[in-house]
Amino acid sequence: MRVLILGGDGYLGWPTAMYFSRKGHEVAVVDNFNKRKWEAEVDASPLIPLPSLQERIRIWKRLTGKKIQMFVGDLVHERFVARVFENFKPDAIIHYGEQPSAPFSMIGNERAVETQVNNVVGNLNVIFSMKRSSPNAHLIKLGTMGEYGTPNIDIEEGWITIRHKGRKDRLLFPKKPGSFYHLSKVHDSANLEFACRIWNLRVTDLNQGVVYGIETEETQMAPGLQTSFHYDDIFGTALNRFCVQAVAGLPITPYGKGGQKRGFLNIVDTLRCVELATQNPAKKGEFRVFNQFTEVFSVNELAEIVRDAAKKMGIDAKVKHVKNPRKEAEDHYYKPVHKELLKLGLKPHKLSEVLVESMMAKIIEHKDNIEDEIIMPRVVWEKKKT
Amino acid sequence: MRVLILGGDGYLGWPTAMYFSRKGHEVAVVDNFNKRKWEAEVDASPLIPLPSLQERIRIWKRLTGKKIQMFVGDLVHERFVARVFENFKPDAIIHYGEQPSAPFSMIGNERAVETQVNNVVGNLNVIFSMKRSSPNAHLIKLGTMGEYGTPNIDIEEGWITIRHKGRKDRLLFPKKPGSFYHLSKVHDSANLEFACRIWNLRVTDLNQGVVYGIETEETQMAPGLQTSFHYDDIFGTALNRFCVQAVAGLPITPYGKGGQKRGFLNIVDTLRCVELATQNPAKKGEFRVFNQFTEVFSVNELAEIVRDAAKKMGIDAKVKHVKNPRKEAEDHYYKPVHKELLKLGLKPHKLSEVLVESMMAKIIEHKDNIEDEIIMPRVVWEKKKT
Repeated sequence: MRVLILGGDGYLGWPTAMYFSRKGHEVAVVDNFNKRKWEAEVDASPLIPLPSLQERIRIWKRLTGKKIQMFVGDLVHERFVARVFENFKPDAIIHYGEQPSAPFSMIGNERAVETQVNNVVGNLNVIFSMKRSSPNAHLIKLGTMGEYGTPNIDIEEGWITIRHKGRKDRLLFPKKPGSFYHLSKVHDSANLEFACRIWNLRVTDLNQGVVYGIETEETQMAPGLQTSFHYDDIFGTALNRFCVQAVAGLPITPYGKGGQKRGFLNIVDTLRCVELATQNPAKKGEFRVFNQFTEVFSVNELAEIVRDAAKKMGIDAKVKHVKNPRKEAEDHYYKPVHKELLKLGLKPHKLSEVLVESMMAKIIEHKDNIEDEIIMPRVVWEKKKT
Repeated sequence: MRVLILGGDGYLGWPTAMYFSRKGHEVAVVDNFNKRKWEAEVDASPLIPLPSLQERIRIWKRLTGKKIQMFVGDLVHERFVARVFENFKPDAIIHYGEQPSAPFSMIGNERAVETQVNNVVGNLNVIFSMKRSSPNAHLIKLGTMGEYGTPNIDIEEGWITIRHKGRKDRLLFPKKPGSFYHLSKVHDSANLEFACRIWNLRVTDLNQGVVYGIETEETQMAPGLQTSFHYDDIFGTALNRFCVQAVAGLPITPYGKGGQKRGFLNIVDTLRCVELATQNPAKKGEFRVFNQFTEVFSVNELAEIVRDAAKKMGIDAKVKHVKNPRKEAEDHYYKPVHKELLKLGLKPHKLSEVLVESMMAKIIEHKDNIEDEIIMPRVVWEKKKT
């Protein structure tokens, strides 16, 4: 299969590229290195210095003999996207190539606009390129569970059959996203559903939970093949921050009450989910949605898991709740369905203390790189008058 | 009240400006004349030459002594929007300032991107300017009934209480829009709902039906105060096209079977609805949605109304169905609720043959301006392989 990975320099993009390459697929990656620019702008370097994409592709080639093709350019440029599609002729497109941070999108007007334009326009250009030159290809688009928010009913996988005043219809599940970033993904999903309906495209929209983990089989094959690990308030996620805080001897800081529940999955399960989607493509004209996570935890539960794992490693970490910079429910109903990927054969890797301990061991190796200043929240959803 | 009208040069913007000015409000209009540029680009001149906005403001001043303030600039420029808000300090903002055509958005990749960026970014900049400098102002945002599409259940006004697996929640009504233009309005609504939730803004989202009519009390007060009348395939609507076709001795051409049902309203009711919204503002933090139309017709019914009115004027028009350039249901359930504006006091002006005859009389005056070539569809939703 010819697999085109958009955002190939990213946390998930690079491990996905190696995963498909190792299995014998023809792989090409696209990136414009915006993420590295944004990291520099907001002072959010990854914990472990990351070799360039070009360097990692060379290491991979030397190690495996397999070539990963690279296109450097921006998805918001229509002609660039068109040329990539005409040139590579993908069977499957895995689209990670978006601004991925909620806090980044909430910095202010300019970043909100940048996030929505970057994500929505890039995705529109992908849709049009598929229509023009790859109408039978299968797009696997990364969305997020955060698009749904925390409604008071069970969250179905993208679609819901609504019975209303004696009639019924199957409609898109109503969303209640929590940031301009999450909204950008909601917009993408709406544009994609339309494209499937009008142009018979095939799309799988993966509403993914929070991914954790640094290692995949491929990242461990040689030094330099690693992926990024962020622990800052902008690009890092709660679990990463908590582990780094424990290692640095800082308190573990859930936002607000910590009753916020979210879906989580291991990075190795992300790779498998994406593979399962490519092996079982959406039908022509089908806008298919999977809720891609394996377990639900509250932020408090995560904090406890990290605290307990730290204790086993001889670190005595405290949990200290801090004012929530976000505006979100901190105690809520949460029951999202996630059956479709299990039906296709996903065997979840559960989050255990063992995994957390191995993450912490890795963090300890790079302990000297930890910058305390970039861990606590710098972006607030609503500025209170003082 | 200080009323800021975005898109003040447009079909609805200009009559709205005069309406509020005449009632003694302080009125300012914003426009960048993009609509005039787009008309030139796609060969879609209005039937009756339209004086410039500046000229119309001068005529209005001479006639009534009332000043309408004007800001020339683009809503996609953050600093321009911020300056307008800081300078004018609106109590109410009426936001018509978007690319308004579905076929325009379907011309191709570039126009789809242009439409979504123009509309979504302009709206985001308005949201941020409200947050910064007018947090108590009331935004009245023009959306469209076309955001909903034609679901098989009754369409509620923006929100629906969903009962599901023994639980319930009130969520945004799921949308099924029919073009990248309609999608841009869906994106706007989602961004606005979030802004109300997070920042306590007040927003009324008007999901408006198809507006018809050329005259309001104010447009008739002096020559040169008229609004635009489009009869082309890009910016014209079905009723306008049908009237022009009858006057020009051409067949009246419903798209496809003509069973497509839509909500309609008279332009004088648009002005009244917008006024009712300003007089009864949304509460702080409320994202309120009204379905703004007064009657439902199928395209075939419209065609018959025009044919019958033409007959009374001695014109023998034929109805001739043509291949539908759009991809849409041509025979469907359609029952949208529209109670909220009636509750606030709206007294609908119904579409009667009398109105259609007066429209046709106006068209006959400018018959020599009709360009046959721009009436039939030039944009198709899906290009069939030949």
